Amino acid sequence: MTISKLTEDAKGVYIIGATPFTDEGALDLQSLDTLTDFYLRCGIHGFTLLGMMGEAHKLTADESLIVVNRVIGRAQGRQVIVGVSHAGLENVRRLAHEAMIAGAAGVMVAPPPGLKGDDGVYNYYAQVFAALGPDIPVVYQDYPQTTGVYLAPAVFERLVDDFKQLVMLKHEDAPGLAKLTHVREGEKKPGRRRVSILVGNGGLYYPQEMRRGADGAMTGFAWPEMLVQVYDHFARGEPEKGEDLFDLYLPLVRHEQQPAIGLALRKEVLFRRGAIKSPRQRAPGSSLSATDKTELDGMIKRLERRLAASGRGTKIAAE
Amino acid sequence: MTISKLTEDAKGVYIIGATPFTDEGALDLQSLDTLTDFYLRCGIHGFTLLGMMGEAHKLTADESLIVVNRVIGRAQGRQVIVGVSHAGLENVRRLAHEAMIAGAAGVMVAPPPGLKGDDGVYNYYAQVFAALGPDIPVVYQDYPQTTGVYLAPAVFERLVDDFKQLVMLKHEDAPGLAKLTHVREGEKKPGRRRVSILVGNGGLYYPQEMRRGADGAMTGFAWPEMLVQVYDHFARGEPEKGEDLFDLYLPLVRHEQQPAIGLALRKEVLFRRGAIKSPRQRAPGSSLSATDKTELDGMIKRLERRLAASGRGTKIAAE
Amino acid sequence: MTISKLTEDAKGVYIIGATPFTDEGALDLQSLDTLTDFYLRCGIHGFTLLGMMGEAHKLTADESLIVVNRVIGRAQGRQVIVGVSHAGLENVRRLAHEAMIAGAAGVMVAPPPGLKGDDGVYNYYAQVFAALGPDIPVVYQDYPQTTGVYLAPAVFERLVDDFKQLVMLKHEDAPGLAKLTHVREGEKKPGRRRVSILVGNGGLYYPQEMRRGADGAMTGFAWPEMLVQVYDHFARGEPEKGEDLFDLYLPLVRHEQQPAIGLALRKEVLFRRGAIKSPRQRAPGSSLSATDKTELDGMIKRLERRLAASGRGTKIAAE
Amino acid sequence: MTISKLTEDAKGVYIIGATPFTDEGALDLQSLDTLTDFYLRCGIHGFTLLGMMGEAHKLTADESLIVVNRVIGRAQGRQVIVGVSHAGLENVRRLAHEAMIAGAAGVMVAPPPGLKGDDGVYNYYAQVFAALGPDIPVVYQDYPQTTGVYLAPAVFERLVDDFKQLVMLKHEDAPGLAKLTHVREGEKKPGRRRVSILVGNGGLYYPQEMRRGADGAMTGFAWPEMLVQVYDHFARGEPEKGEDLFDLYLPLVRHEQQPAIGLALRKEVLFRRGAIKSPRQRAPGSSLSATDKTELDGMIKRLERRLAASGRGTKIAAE
Repeated sequence: MTISKLTEDAKGVYIIGATPFTDEGALDLQSLDTLTDFYLRCGIHGFTLLGMMGEAHKLTADESLIVVNRVIGRAQGRQVIVGVSHAGLENVRRLAHEAMIAGAAGVMVAPPPGLKGDDGVYNYYAQVFAALGPDIPVVYQDYPQTTGVYLAPAVFERLVDDFKQLVMLKHEDAPGLAKLTHVREGEKKPGRRRVSILVGNGGLYYPQEMRRGADGAMTGFAWPEMLVQVYDHFARGEPEKGEDLFDLYLPLVRHEQQPAIGLALRKEVLFRRGAIKSPRQRAPGSSLSATDKTELDGMIKRLERRLAASGRGTKIAAE
Repeated sequence: MTISKLTEDAKGVYIIGATPFTDEGALDLQSLDTLTDFYLRCGIHGFTLLGMMGEAHKLTADESLIVVNRVIGRAQGRQVIVGVSHAGLENVRRLAHEAMIAGAAGVMVAPPPGLKGDDGVYNYYAQVFAALGPDIPVVYQDYPQTTGVYLAPAVFERLVDDFKQLVMLKHEDAPGLAKLTHVREGEKKPGRRRVSILVGNGGLYYPQEMRRGADGAMTGFAWPEMLVQVYDHFARGEPEKGEDLFDLYLPLVRHEQQPAIGLALRKEVLFRRGAIKSPRQRAPGSSLSATDKTELDGMIKRLERRLAASGRGTKIAAE
Repeated sequence: MTISKLTEDAKGVYIIGATPFTDEGALDLQSLDTLTDFYLRCGIHGFTLLGMMGEAHKLTADESLIVVNRVIGRAQGRQVIVGVSHAGLENVRRLAHEAMIAGAAGVMVAPPPGLKGDDGVYNYYAQVFAALGPDIPVVYQDYPQTTGVYLAPAVFERLVDDFKQLVMLKHEDAPGLAKLTHVREGEKKPGRRRVSILVGNGGLYYPQEMRRGADGAMTGFAWPEMLVQVYDHFARGEPEKGEDLFDLYLPLVRHEQQPAIGLALRKEVLFRRGAIKSPRQRAPGSSLSATDKTELDGMIKRLERRLAASGRGTKIAAE
Repeated sequence: MTISKLTEDAKGVYIIGATPFTDEGALDLQSLDTLTDFYLRCGIHGFTLLGMMGEAHKLTADESLIVVNRVIGRAQGRQVIVGVSHAGLENVRRLAHEAMIAGAAGVMVAPPPGLKGDDGVYNYYAQVFAALGPDIPVVYQDYPQTTGVYLAPAVFERLVDDFKQLVMLKHEDAPGLAKLTHVREGEKKPGRRRVSILVGNGGLYYPQEMRRGADGAMTGFAWPEMLVQVYDHFARGEPEKGEDLFDLYLPLVRHEQQPAIGLALRKEVLFRRGAIKSPRQRAPGSSLSATDKTELDGMIKRLERRLAASGRGTKIAAE
């Protein structure tokens, strides 16, 4: 299947895919299929694989490629972005080429820890673009909470001006609302390209970011249909309806966004929704206590009650 | 006025007080009075002054004491806890004694950056307790996001066992829910004291924490009446009602909890509600753009609409 | 006594002064006098007070001023630079003015943690210079190991171009040799001022830095006469002799430069040399074990043996 | 060739091997051979491969195994320790088994960033030991400057008591001298095993650590013969002679120990000594300016002059 490459026009919800394992810790390809189908039924517009939340760092190189190929083969033409961040530039290049050969639409690169100053960031990405060549579309993952590397808006603009293959900002600095607005304002200058901006941080500020000009979300919230429906509302010019819906889910968005145990919660929900056969993470990983699970029960019941009261239901499940 | 000392039985909402400045950056004592009155009208049970959000680090030593005395004089008998964290232990001791002489109910101490290992934390607090003596009640502020110092539950339990003056945990680790449960479970062992736990993190996990055994909140959310009403619901055995109310405010709780600009948002709301005459922070501080303010307008309108729809109103204002 | 203000022409050794305390932890002004005299006998060219190694953060505001006044009054006309870094800009301003009124030659300002990107650094210092006015000479303390704030050479050059009162770089980034060379090369451009550069990091790279264009050292090594003699050798065009001498002391330079216990070692040496009456630090501070002291004995004996073998002696002591 | 497994009796110099690349960035196996031979001629007692300084994080999994096999095949029976730290425990296990099958004597594991508190460290290693089984000897790499994880002496002692396969501490905390003494003192208690301690930090405190009970060094200083000769002096009961020799090299030990450019200096020296064909690092890596190289010239000339004056020469070179 020929999949189009990622461009500045990308929009919608690119789900950060979880990686399912068996209870014994082996890659669970059947669950990867059911999970892919689940995401598709939720209406997502694309996939992002091997992100920080996808436990990519616990896979072998071979397993990573297996995951990428499997999802691409089942994605019904949806674009797949592959995370290729690595401490060595040669490995970034190799992973990116393998991903593109497998049919990826583009790659995502976060800066390595330790870059210093504006020029340190610019020069690193200049090296990345030189190594990847002009034909691989690149997403800048701006996640300083983990990388420790600050992206000044001016540096991002220099990169956009100088490298056509930079087509998207995955925006998850915090606070980040001002940066998003800054980038959108800057794009009004003549001659500057408008790039796609998808937002992360678990979607915690999703409606605010959509109002400020984001093109959608790239995150792994375990009810992806909410991300899609909110996007649709905004696309139809109904921001208030979008935010009303978002607010129903906000208690769980916030709950999943807790550091360290967020992924355990997310996989538990995917498990309960039938999308994967086991909520297990590869070690070292967090796990949920009985108290955590009871708490989650209650929060999900509250969600269902509120959805029902608003005339909506939890419609998507894996059959 | 004789104010009782802080004990393990403390509960309710201890508001983290903002420090008002004039547009020129001077301490604004009149606004401090109106702000104190505003907090009292919101129904808060106590005050915490000179916390991290109170811009304490930008005050002179003299100004700090002026703030403490002014609020204590106007607090209508509510307990006042004073933050006395300092890089030097002698200064911790001096500030604590000055606060107690001024009528404080107790003091709050965060660990200094750089403590190493469980023993490093224990030994630091052992030094603090030795320096303060047995008569000054102490709150342990567990805020590793800023201090970088992790408090193991076992270390907290050793401190509780060994130092009677440790009466409260200000709980704001993240993730912190498991730690809260761990401490509450541990207290069931014979011979262990039950201490008060008030929760921070802007109240972001307030209902979950209340369900797990917290005694209330110690944070600076700009609609303190919500913190109080939620507390009251839980005290009356109505957790679902408490959480329903909380969820109405959650979009703003989350909005205020953004790093770096949270305080600017909080002071802006206090300013709009008439509690202070200027939203200004002392430099270096964050400020709000026109976009930020328009966004806040919209979020407040949404809150008011939802409160109205639920049969509640924004009842508290400074007259 | 009228003391000249600090200028771009400053050179030599500005000793980072220790702050002596009694065994009970009180400020020991008599030891401050003997220490000042000791430094003067060592031949130092200036003083830097209230630096990070001077336990400034454990002094009260009043004590800080007492130290500044006492040393200035006894400094025999040597320039005194005062550290005025503070989380609040108003406090920076106040401390700087108090220091200048007391007779300081200039002030030193490190960036507060959390500044983001090149513009974050530039804008903070622009605020500082605006607050201090054009008449207070300022030293930029570039110590990212503690502050976490990287100073890009280009940012320093912008600041030098835009603010005449910026007259000195205290250079202690690591690695920092390339930055020092970068700044010196940049100064050859027409219209750019040459500023003074004094080096820190305990003097660990002192000869290399002098060869690259440093004007001297600003550090607190407990044998200040070495710093002075090395400077003199370089000033006389004898870099190899300077480095030969430096190498004799290098084992102790390196030993004192250990994190966390460096100050304990430094004060112990000052105590043994008769410069202060007690090696005590204010709590929380590090202290030396019996093993540490025996080790130091051996290292000092080795130094004395090597100095004797090279025809030099440990000439300076407090009488 | 059968190589004995690593035990608590390990001593001497285990060189951290550099990984040579061609100017084009390919793994240079011929240089790996000449480098291995060079190390052997220097008299080293063992090898440590795939450490942080070996650019292991820039190799592919296949390349890592090639390096391990190649060196083991040429090591003339010297023990080879292989670094197997990885974010995923399953990968630690896999790498360790591959290394042992290739003939490694043991493996080295550093803690992953983010472990919290004493129990966090203990539990992680308990998981590692469970995953590896009792037959793979393990070195604990204690390098908090990079990992951010503090190892309390008491935790190390618990691990030694509970897991027989923990046979060595690679000691490079800073300050670390007190920890080394603490561990050695603790081992005098009846029933506690004495483990091997080899020291890192570029050897910066090597003589002090040997006097406190270290068994040798595990570091990558580019004049490994010095590490060996100092070890020999200590082994013969001549600590002063050992320290005299060390001090001749200390200026270069310190120079190589600079963050970020240390590896560039180290590879440049190995290149100049004929041990490798190119000093190139894989990107992103540091490189030396003309000024850096001239500076290094001068420092090497100074070393040679001092060695000659002391009746020693730079005897080892690759022919």
